[in-house]
Amino acid sequence: MCGIVGYIGDQQAAPILLDGLSKLEYRGYDSAGIAVYNGEKIDMIKSKGRLKVLSELTHDGETLPGTLGIGHTRWATHGSPSDINAHPHFNKDESIVVVHNGIIENYLKLKKKLERHGYEFVSETDTEVIAHLLDYYYNGNPLQAVTKIMHRMEGSYALGIVFQDHPDELYAVRKDSPLIVGHTKGGNIIASDVPAVLKYTRDVFFIENEEIVRMTDSTMEFFNVDEEMIEKESVRIEWDVNAAEKGGYEHFMLKEMYEQPKAITDTFSPRVKDGNIVIDELNMTEEEIKEIKKIMIVACGSAYHAGVTSKYIFEGLARIPVEVDVASEFRYRDPILEDGTLVVVISQSGETADTLAALRESKARGARVLGIVNVVGSSIAREADNVMYTWAGPEIAVATTKAYSAQLISLYLLAMKFAYVKEKIDDTVLADMLEDLKSLPAQVEMLLNNKEKIQRFANRYLAARDIFFIGRGIDYAISMEGSLKLKEISYIHSEAYAAGELKHGTISLVEEGTLVASVLTQKALYKKMISNMVEVRTRGAFVMAVTMEGNTEVERAADYVIYIPETNRYFTNSLAIIPLQLFGYYVSVGRGCDVDKPRNLAKSVTVE
Amino acid sequence: MCGIVGYIGDQQAAPILLDGLSKLEYRGYDSAGIAVYNGEKIDMIKSKGRLKVLSELTHDGETLPGTLGIGHTRWATHGSPSDINAHPHFNKDESIVVVHNGIIENYLKLKKKLERHGYEFVSETDTEVIAHLLDYYYNGNPLQAVTKIMHRMEGSYALGIVFQDHPDELYAVRKDSPLIVGHTKGGNIIASDVPAVLKYTRDVFFIENEEIVRMTDSTMEFFNVDEEMIEKESVRIEWDVNAAEKGGYEHFMLKEMYEQPKAITDTFSPRVKDGNIVIDELNMTEEEIKEIKKIMIVACGSAYHAGVTSKYIFEGLARIPVEVDVASEFRYRDPILEDGTLVVVISQSGETADTLAALRESKARGARVLGIVNVVGSSIAREADNVMYTWAGPEIAVATTKAYSAQLISLYLLAMKFAYVKEKIDDTVLADMLEDLKSLPAQVEMLLNNKEKIQRFANRYLAARDIFFIGRGIDYAISMEGSLKLKEISYIHSEAYAAGELKHGTISLVEEGTLVASVLTQKALYKKMISNMVEVRTRGAFVMAVTMEGNTEVERAADYVIYIPETNRYFTNSLAIIPLQLFGYYVSVGRGCDVDKPRNLAKSVTVE
Repeated sequence: MCGIVGYIGDQQAAPILLDGLSKLEYRGYDSAGIAVYNGEKIDMIKSKGRLKVLSELTHDGETLPGTLGIGHTRWATHGSPSDINAHPHFNKDESIVVVHNGIIENYLKLKKKLERHGYEFVSETDTEVIAHLLDYYYNGNPLQAVTKIMHRMEGSYALGIVFQDHPDELYAVRKDSPLIVGHTKGGNIIASDVPAVLKYTRDVFFIENEEIVRMTDSTMEFFNVDEEMIEKESVRIEWDVNAAEKGGYEHFMLKEMYEQPKAITDTFSPRVKDGNIVIDELNMTEEEIKEIKKIMIVACGSAYHAGVTSKYIFEGLARIPVEVDVASEFRYRDPILEDGTLVVVISQSGETADTLAALRESKARGARVLGIVNVVGSSIAREADNVMYTWAGPEIAVATTKAYSAQLISLYLLAMKFAYVKEKIDDTVLADMLEDLKSLPAQVEMLLNNKEKIQRFANRYLAARDIFFIGRGIDYAISMEGSLKLKEISYIHSEAYAAGELKHGTISLVEEGTLVASVLTQKALYKKMISNMVEVRTRGAFVMAVTMEGNTEVERAADYVIYIPETNRYFTNSLAIIPLQLFGYYVSVGRGCDVDKPRNLAKSVTVE
Repeated sequence: MCGIVGYIGDQQAAPILLDGLSKLEYRGYDSAGIAVYNGEKIDMIKSKGRLKVLSELTHDGETLPGTLGIGHTRWATHGSPSDINAHPHFNKDESIVVVHNGIIENYLKLKKKLERHGYEFVSETDTEVIAHLLDYYYNGNPLQAVTKIMHRMEGSYALGIVFQDHPDELYAVRKDSPLIVGHTKGGNIIASDVPAVLKYTRDVFFIENEEIVRMTDSTMEFFNVDEEMIEKESVRIEWDVNAAEKGGYEHFMLKEMYEQPKAITDTFSPRVKDGNIVIDELNMTEEEIKEIKKIMIVACGSAYHAGVTSKYIFEGLARIPVEVDVASEFRYRDPILEDGTLVVVISQSGETADTLAALRESKARGARVLGIVNVVGSSIAREADNVMYTWAGPEIAVATTKAYSAQLISLYLLAMKFAYVKEKIDDTVLADMLEDLKSLPAQVEMLLNNKEKIQRFANRYLAARDIFFIGRGIDYAISMEGSLKLKEISYIHSEAYAAGELKHGTISLVEEGTLVASVLTQKALYKKMISNMVEVRTRGAFVMAVTMEGNTEVERAADYVIYIPETNRYFTNSLAIIPLQLFGYYVSVGRGCDVDKPRNLAKSVTVE
């Protein structure tokens, strides 16, 4: 996820670009840059860090005079955050400049081809490929060059492009990444999202997949990939700027829940090639995988819960023993790391202090460390021996949703890959699982769209004091995450329990009307779970159940049931967590809490 | 722990014995027996099971006529519960009969000696040794025989003895096990404890260590071990029967807390021989110990918390990797049990269904299982490959205290033994640790005697809704048990957290005045813990700390501090848990809860 902007008109471009980018920082903020045509050539300034660094470097845009320009605020995917990897990117003679939001999946292949033709690359990004590819195909007709590269690129992109020898034109195009354009007084503007343009116009055009825009300071034309002109209608935006940043959602948390199907797709789709799992950045040979005798998973908070889930999958599928530990505990308990132990650390930010300390402790003890992180170039990404990215994009709400979902997918892929390399599963099993994986995004979307039902249910528990979440096996891991989601944003004291353990003490807290959310996604455990549900119901609990479609048996023991669609038994967390996230969210909203910024909490915990 | 009674007088003995035993069932109830002199010889009836089985067998005592007799209700230590192992025990010609409460630590040595002299043993008990030893030394003078065996026996005992050729006399003696005697109308009575005699008299003599009683139907004489007569004063008992069963304590839970010093002593003292750790019943060779590559601890509730504690000790001391799992989870997660894995199951009752199922699952998978249980002859004791008993005696209160403390001691001993056999610790370290172990009972007693201070503090939290317990490492394990103790009997929603993990979500529940109980017994973690305490205090928490004497630094971050005496860093749980038990107890009392029988809970959970 990144944010792009572009402007052409009678005003100075740079201040407008910087202002637009400031409204897109929620899309990424590890580096930023702008390029402006100064009447002779294209000037460019880029910088690692938040946007304000760039503003200072350019004296709020003053040092880049000109009325045509493009800008970018970055969330790294290929190549760590740095001045060089920041956008925009030039072709070799700096006559074409491009900003990009998205991922070019075949960029390595394209890069090799271009290198064979003598192109030299200065950055590690996939975007630089686009600049050189434009150069390669450009013969004086910008529109033609754009359609040509569209035929060659696989993946997702929204691009803003300036050709120095067409200084009265700004080009933009998109596929699977958002792009809007709008008329302003004396000019035209492009952006990744509405908030960047609201100051200038409320009438915008939503560019559809594979549509191209050519704009001057006064005209705007739309083309399809066959270079045929098309008609588009503008849409009137009624949101205020604040709502617009959240894509019209009331909170970032809800928006990010809705981004989960995309986060899941982005995380698995580039890793599935010809029915095999290929994790480019992992950099681990089959021999190295075969040597893994034990996995030690270390993380905090929700990432820890993702780790607990994966224990069942690594053990069940790959038959590798797994120990999962809270990072702040792991470090200080003098852990025994025998030969063949792979330490897996999981962190959204890649900067979680406890997790980073655990990584360093493990390395100091000679263990190999694999980092699963969302932020490219973060400390954990840099210091781990191996890395796997969760491509969830930036997450603003403190309570994680899409990053957690992407962590699960990464762990599924790792477990499947390890199991396959160790010959614990065959091609058929792998193919079946990949098939189920592919269905997850649509299934998640379906569950999200059922949100009104959960909202009504949640409204009954706004005054609850204690809520329990119970489950067995993977369902216990889901319960832990469901409970944390609720408690951290609603301040209701909820607690997750292994369903069979409740009766060894904590069941004494169950009173008339206590809500017990029960998760049953594992067929083999249905009966045992139903017994536990009856136990608490007998003591007066109101029992809510999250279970698989078809398990109507559960209605004997539950007062309220949410069904989730069929999937592989190891993937159920990705579905069952959705209603629980929604439940936590709506309880928090109903209680009037600050959903996105709960008290006492920080998004990235960089202290121990 | 067992209960003994004896009667001599003008009434039928058997009904009085049965009635007395019924008041002592809290001391043991796995089997019972009575012996009565019928004018010619001594009749005896014994039976496995609760006392009512014996009452039915004897038609409430009618089938055993006579006015001199002794009785026993058993809590097995040596030899499983059975008709044969039940007391009383005879010498070979059935002319001497004895009941015993206590443990004869050198019984094996004595048994061998007696066997060399042609004595044959029918039971597995240590008590049968006493009957034969009396026979060996008896030359017509009962008092002399009693003092002679006193010189030979090591351990603890309270005995009731009848010699057939002195049919007008009843003898009793004690060392480190309780014994009282009293005059009744037309007779005299002996018993382990006051409730058994209250129906007959309120004036009792408390027999001191190594004092002997000789009584007839009308006289009562006291002797010391040199057969010199001594004077004793009777004490007037003001308690009612109900209070008397609880030894004057308001609840069994408090009584059992006060029995912890004894439970600790009983659990370690017989296992320490000449500076070595010898666990007779364990039955595991040094080679077998050396082959242990991994330990999997499986338990429920407080036993699980004891297991979590021991992970740090097994790993730290013996460098054996340990995984701890909740029993209800372990069974269903298709656990990977590699060669060399020792499964350790822990259960007070030895009948916990989840734990028993885990044991069977492990055995079915070919793993060796060691059971740590409090009840001799229980299912887990019978089915485990190896067993180690926690000699805590019967526990009546649902919330465990002394059984938990005894479990800790057993686990310490095992870890030390494994570490020593594997040559990870040397004689000096072992000796130092044993020295610290020996100091624990007195230290626990000291902490218990400080109860008023805790009570005053607890009274401030009777209306609390949420309480958190935090700690790191072993202190986290202590926090888990402290939290469970509170929540299960007070119904206040408390939760234990790894101190460093709180900030990853749950800290949002901390409000002005929320009590956060912090445990800091590990020097290496003081600083980190203090940071975590400051974190919650900054958010308004009231911070209570349990820490080691001398760590006054903690007062910077805590509002209320409880200091515990110095001990080995692996043994701190045994001390730190005491104030937390007292805290839970007094909050429950203050809230008017049913302390000994909290709602929804059963003492021994025999369902899954």
